[in-house]
Amino acid sequence: VDNRCLPEPPFITFLSDYGLADEFVGVCHGVMLRRCPQAVVIDITHEIPPQDVRTGALVLRDALAYMPAGVHLAVVDPTVGGGGAGARRAVAMRTGAGERLLVGPDNGLLSLAAAGAGGVREAVDISRSAERLRPLSSTFHGRDVFSPVAGALAAGVPLDGIGEPIALESLSGLALPVAEAGDGVLAAHVLRVDRFGNLLLDASTNDLDRAGLHPGREISVEAAGEFHRALRCVAFADVPAGELLLYEDSVRMAALAVNCGSAAELLRAQGGETVLLRAA
Amino acid sequence: VDNRCLPEPPFITFLSDYGLADEFVGVCHGVMLRRCPQAVVIDITHEIPPQDVRTGALVLRDALAYMPAGVHLAVVDPTVGGGGAGARRAVAMRTGAGERLLVGPDNGLLSLAAAGAGGVREAVDISRSAERLRPLSSTFHGRDVFSPVAGALAAGVPLDGIGEPIALESLSGLALPVAEAGDGVLAAHVLRVDRFGNLLLDASTNDLDRAGLHPGREISVEAAGEFHRALRCVAFADVPAGELLLYEDSVRMAALAVNCGSAAELLRAQGGETVLLRAA
Amino acid sequence: VDNRCLPEPPFITFLSDYGLADEFVGVCHGVMLRRCPQAVVIDITHEIPPQDVRTGALVLRDALAYMPAGVHLAVVDPTVGGGGAGARRAVAMRTGAGERLLVGPDNGLLSLAAAGAGGVREAVDISRSAERLRPLSSTFHGRDVFSPVAGALAAGVPLDGIGEPIALESLSGLALPVAEAGDGVLAAHVLRVDRFGNLLLDASTNDLDRAGLHPGREISVEAAGEFHRALRCVAFADVPAGELLLYEDSVRMAALAVNCGSAAELLRAQGGETVLLRAA
Repeated sequence: VDNRCLPEPPFITFLSDYGLADEFVGVCHGVMLRRCPQAVVIDITHEIPPQDVRTGALVLRDALAYMPAGVHLAVVDPTVGGGGAGARRAVAMRTGAGERLLVGPDNGLLSLAAAGAGGVREAVDISRSAERLRPLSSTFHGRDVFSPVAGALAAGVPLDGIGEPIALESLSGLALPVAEAGDGVLAAHVLRVDRFGNLLLDASTNDLDRAGLHPGREISVEAAGEFHRALRCVAFADVPAGELLLYEDSVRMAALAVNCGSAAELLRAQGGETVLLRAA
Repeated sequence: VDNRCLPEPPFITFLSDYGLADEFVGVCHGVMLRRCPQAVVIDITHEIPPQDVRTGALVLRDALAYMPAGVHLAVVDPTVGGGGAGARRAVAMRTGAGERLLVGPDNGLLSLAAAGAGGVREAVDISRSAERLRPLSSTFHGRDVFSPVAGALAAGVPLDGIGEPIALESLSGLALPVAEAGDGVLAAHVLRVDRFGNLLLDASTNDLDRAGLHPGREISVEAAGEFHRALRCVAFADVPAGELLLYEDSVRMAALAVNCGSAAELLRAQGGETVLLRAA
Repeated sequence: VDNRCLPEPPFITFLSDYGLADEFVGVCHGVMLRRCPQAVVIDITHEIPPQDVRTGALVLRDALAYMPAGVHLAVVDPTVGGGGAGARRAVAMRTGAGERLLVGPDNGLLSLAAAGAGGVREAVDISRSAERLRPLSSTFHGRDVFSPVAGALAAGVPLDGIGEPIALESLSGLALPVAEAGDGVLAAHVLRVDRFGNLLLDASTNDLDRAGLHPGREISVEAAGEFHRALRCVAFADVPAGELLLYEDSVRMAALAVNCGSAAELLRAQGGETVLLRAA
């Protein structure tokens, strides 16, 4: 039998801050696969820092281009279950490019990914979707609201069959810091720290070039009141072990790393810090 | 091609205390998929605290209702490989509801899940199953005994084809603490602590109501000799950030949380502690 | 419908040091499944210590025998993106047994697995494979080089369609420490430490027997200048809780463990240490 003539399965990608220590992720997988047994679930990551909507939004945006088209579930949801007029909605939306369907809380988490995938073309409020599980918990909407809706979409239920249409301009956005250039200095911000201690900045390589921080240049890096030397280069191995480098990371933004070491340790950064970059 | 006309795959859910730092879980996946290449394996969690049979049993019970019917493998096995008359058996069993097949050590790990799924209808001892891998290790029965049996069941081998029938009353059970009400106080126990520092108790919301700890009430929480104030409410956001709440968790039991914080830190609890709840 | 008449999917196993905290693993899954939507990806582990090629090679070798035949992707790649004449190649190879296709950096990571699977029969340099993603990053070849090649192989592209043939003798190997017996003492090395604190040694059980350290014997274990007593036995439960044992681990090598405890803690070992074993 030639297994490659199998039809493509419906894909669901899944990102959250649930961590892997508890059964939350596994339970959501179960709910999705009960609703759509043919689905294939791809875990993007579940180690978004707890309740850190901004990091979740950034990771989802950066990962999405590498995912097969399908349903994209994301849950970072600090105000889950909060009632009253200020309650955040649960939403599902179709983007303008690539036939992508995003599902999650309407707190900005999906906004960067949607913008990166051609913008939102259609959105529905799934807060009262008929797909929700019963009884509905107040604290685990990943299981009770988002996963069954994601499964239903993967099973072919159309958007207007799982929620109430909403105005696109009512969807929540997200404000990001912006690197600022001026007077011989580029002030960038640490957007994220990865497992290897690399610091991902909000400056593009274009920003670096415009600030005169060209490839091959020595650069002064000011962080937490201390000054460090870095080389702008291409690969970790372009500097000796233990030394700092400024490079274009895998999503084409500027990043700081220490070859065979941790820039996060050297610069004592955890995310959110401002770093000042100057030609040395 | 409409991918949704694919037949349902055989599902195997998998829970263990193997952690993800080593290759144990991956190797078990490999063994299951070699035996049943069409199976889909759902990882419930592998971060059960090492050798903590009780937590494993509770998590399996709570997760099972959200899993598709199929084979349910669980391995938390402190006495693996122990010989002699006292050796724990390896077992597989069919439950009374939902066509579920449970596989694991006969040390109580499966008992709560089985009870929650309609009780055991049929059980076999798989300690000498012909499905076991050769050579058989003394320390990794997850790989050598449980995974091949789970794969065989997923592939359609009937229970009586993989082991020797055993009397249902010979299966191991598990004793759980029980919340006790009396004299204006409800003495509950911390069954588990989750990633967010929420404390899951052994009291149902009925127990709370009967003790007069009604929704909307202020409650005194005594833990580790210290007293705290909590509000019984529905969602985290019903109290200000940093404050303690008593709520119904996602499996309908009482739980303690701190909004935007950690009840485990506030109450210095790790699991097993007694907490005394009183109307304030 | 009988789901067991489904054809076998193409399998890809995946091992790395990417960890699960970031989206690296999820993104690689996405890339593989975009290229081969029918593939099933089995994660062996992603918690190889960062940049520890030797541990990665050992884990891959030990796990491979339990994996279904297919594509086997491994990425532990300390010199990723390094340029010039000394740059490591990216390679894919077919082994002599079991129709296995290995993909990864040519830094020794694949060498032990290949040797264990019948040796390399055919190898290609995929550093400039037409399957690579564009734009190509300098730091994430797992996503841009290795995953698309693994997906292409799973989709049926032949080896000579994804890279340039290379001489088998040009492939990188890996030097391992070797346990040495002499003068009443067996000097072994700690190859790995697992989640339970068990110490996996580079001595086979044959080595133990030849050194007179037979089953049932009391053994003196010298580590970090301190002496401990261990019993050579079969299962953890063969010694009282808290006591040290020397046993045959699940891949038939000697290992040290503490029943219901951690040998790594007792012997203060992290990997790489020498331990001296003597009949007591």
